[in-house]
Amino acid sequence: MVNFWISEVYDIMNKRIYLDHAATTYLRQEAFSAMMPYLGEIYGNPSSIHAFGFEARRALEAARAQIAEVLGAKTEEILFTSGGTESDNLAVRGAAQAKKGKGRHIITSQIEHPAVMKTCRALEKEGFEVTYLPVDQDGIVNLEALKAALREDTILVSIMAANNEIGTIEPIEEIGRIVKEKSKVYFHVDAVQAVGVMDMSLDRLIDVDLMSFSAHKFYGPAGIGGLFVRKGTRLSSILTGGSQEKGKRAGTENVAGAVGMAEALKLAAQEREEEAVRLSELRDHLIERVLGEIPDSRLNGHRQKRLPGNANFSFDYIEGESLVMRMSALGIAGSTGSACSSASLNPSHVLLAIGLKHETAHGSYRVTLGKATTRQDIDDTVEALKSVVKELRDMSPLCQKG
Amino acid sequence: MVNFWISEVYDIMNKRIYLDHAATTYLRQEAFSAMMPYLGEIYGNPSSIHAFGFEARRALEAARAQIAEVLGAKTEEILFTSGGTESDNLAVRGAAQAKKGKGRHIITSQIEHPAVMKTCRALEKEGFEVTYLPVDQDGIVNLEALKAALREDTILVSIMAANNEIGTIEPIEEIGRIVKEKSKVYFHVDAVQAVGVMDMSLDRLIDVDLMSFSAHKFYGPAGIGGLFVRKGTRLSSILTGGSQEKGKRAGTENVAGAVGMAEALKLAAQEREEEAVRLSELRDHLIERVLGEIPDSRLNGHRQKRLPGNANFSFDYIEGESLVMRMSALGIAGSTGSACSSASLNPSHVLLAIGLKHETAHGSYRVTLGKATTRQDIDDTVEALKSVVKELRDMSPLCQKG
Repeated sequence: MVNFWISEVYDIMNKRIYLDHAATTYLRQEAFSAMMPYLGEIYGNPSSIHAFGFEARRALEAARAQIAEVLGAKTEEILFTSGGTESDNLAVRGAAQAKKGKGRHIITSQIEHPAVMKTCRALEKEGFEVTYLPVDQDGIVNLEALKAALREDTILVSIMAANNEIGTIEPIEEIGRIVKEKSKVYFHVDAVQAVGVMDMSLDRLIDVDLMSFSAHKFYGPAGIGGLFVRKGTRLSSILTGGSQEKGKRAGTENVAGAVGMAEALKLAAQEREEEAVRLSELRDHLIERVLGEIPDSRLNGHRQKRLPGNANFSFDYIEGESLVMRMSALGIAGSTGSACSSASLNPSHVLLAIGLKHETAHGSYRVTLGKATTRQDIDDTVEALKSVVKELRDMSPLCQKG
Repeated sequence: MVNFWISEVYDIMNKRIYLDHAATTYLRQEAFSAMMPYLGEIYGNPSSIHAFGFEARRALEAARAQIAEVLGAKTEEILFTSGGTESDNLAVRGAAQAKKGKGRHIITSQIEHPAVMKTCRALEKEGFEVTYLPVDQDGIVNLEALKAALREDTILVSIMAANNEIGTIEPIEEIGRIVKEKSKVYFHVDAVQAVGVMDMSLDRLIDVDLMSFSAHKFYGPAGIGGLFVRKGTRLSSILTGGSQEKGKRAGTENVAGAVGMAEALKLAAQEREEEAVRLSELRDHLIERVLGEIPDSRLNGHRQKRLPGNANFSFDYIEGESLVMRMSALGIAGSTGSACSSASLNPSHVLLAIGLKHETAHGSYRVTLGKATTRQDIDDTVEALKSVVKELRDMSPLCQKG
């Protein structure tokens, strides 16, 4: 274990600043309140054909309808899952299995979340061929490469709406148009970082066939997510068993979770535009101060086309994990990149894909803002970062070499 | 939709009697209280390497340790999943994929839950061969058939601990001994109906390699379950992505769910012996009254070797769904069999396997007792059943023929 030591420069130990909203958000009070009855007196199994079951079923279907309305989808196009990872797995693996009679070629990008990336790697072992599209230095998928990659036997294109590490927003509408020039190709969008934050209306994004989302990214509960499946889209199930979710996803439904997700999504949609402006301003203030006041620092991801709450920095000569831990000791919770990969010691595949060198790809610090974040939090974070970066560089043999 | 009508015989409309605990139980207060902090101020992602993440990780690992202790397992042998269905899928599919180099033959029974049964059917399409063992008229797996079915290329045997419809308890220890005569064969037990109700200690059940359980069957929350994976057992993951659960199950962990499940399981284990005696007495009282007072009724499942809270009846000339709905109108919530299959109009595969005719297999009524069930509930249920069975038979053309 790492032995934390206390910086003497800042005495903010009593304050804790959470800047890891891309990893998870807190459960908002309104969503918790909406869930309460379903963690208490209303406990039937929605598949049971008696009054207890009907009550649970009504709540589940009301949640589904509410989510569909926010996303501009039909109620029957929303499937509940256990979260973003299951949604991504179901979309990619389920579409691949359903369409393999038509072809075995899949296109994705080099910067997808592991839930898509590793599922594609697994499918390669099962006889599918996968093209991993390159991205530019900001993380934008290369559209010419996409056009060149589409083939007669391509069955699925899976591209994320916004990257979880560097925050870059992909041109989903343009990608959709290109994909749909080949009419048989399904288009899946991993929108886990986008839903609740950006406008992901599916009546506007008409070329999207499948879209993944996860409640705990927008102040809903953990353990519940969803997959939009546009009407007519064929999908094999990956969890087989009971006939829940129209046979597409077996398992007793998590009613409380679904209700909490629906409430959180409704509120996120209401607050979205205002909150996006507020977070973008805070983010830009953070970026300007860090790049201006910390030497040898760089911003990863696109300067403008990025999630309102995301900033991702590299600091030369510094190892990201040490930075996260030292900042945590000061009460500030950021991350090296993806929480899902934090057990891994490999450099970020996203940072490598945008052209960073191995040693720099180890040194990133991701700050993701949320509803409770204030300007004071940002200024405290900048001061702490300046101090910690200096301290770490003073200790670093790499820096003395540099 | 069915148009409910009100029986004039019993005026118990203001009382609701829940007798469908095999479908789902309510969330007990202690489990909810244990979950509360993790639905509130403690919200970090357990994979995050900062203080918020560490807090969540500690709670998750404490829950894992508590579950392991109750089950007589090692902490690292417990994986969290989204529920019983995912656990069954991971066990069967994960073992099949991991062991397919050694052989492609799987053995299961004709009365497994759809989460095992349909997964086996799916594997058949992928080149595996599956033997579905017959059961006797009480639902006990035929051990001679098991011995005869085991082959050099058998890689997995999956048998449930207790049947979800008819409550019959299988001879898991004996099955385990037979299986382990072929040392390479994995033994999976779907214990979704058994954990929390029966002694399923894995330091006693030494031949069990994999065991599924689900929190909402023992007064824990929905949306969380677990899989015991004995040390050394190879298993491919079915949800790929982040490196959570030692790479065996990707996806952000449901901390509140895990904590609630651990608390519910601990309490269930403490109360188990006393509650089993109480429920068995109520069950036997119910069975005696029904068989004694309702003509042309029969009990499905083994008379003694059955779950303490399970009774499953067939009434000649009566369609099960009508019975469930009429009983529900009287405030009594039972089921036709499995909630997971209630959307299906097919007769129960379990009742067919124990030798019931098609028309009888449509006519079962399952009553599953739980913590809140009283003797008065049982007597009210018997009176209601007598009345409803008579009313339905008076209307039934089958009965007039009979």
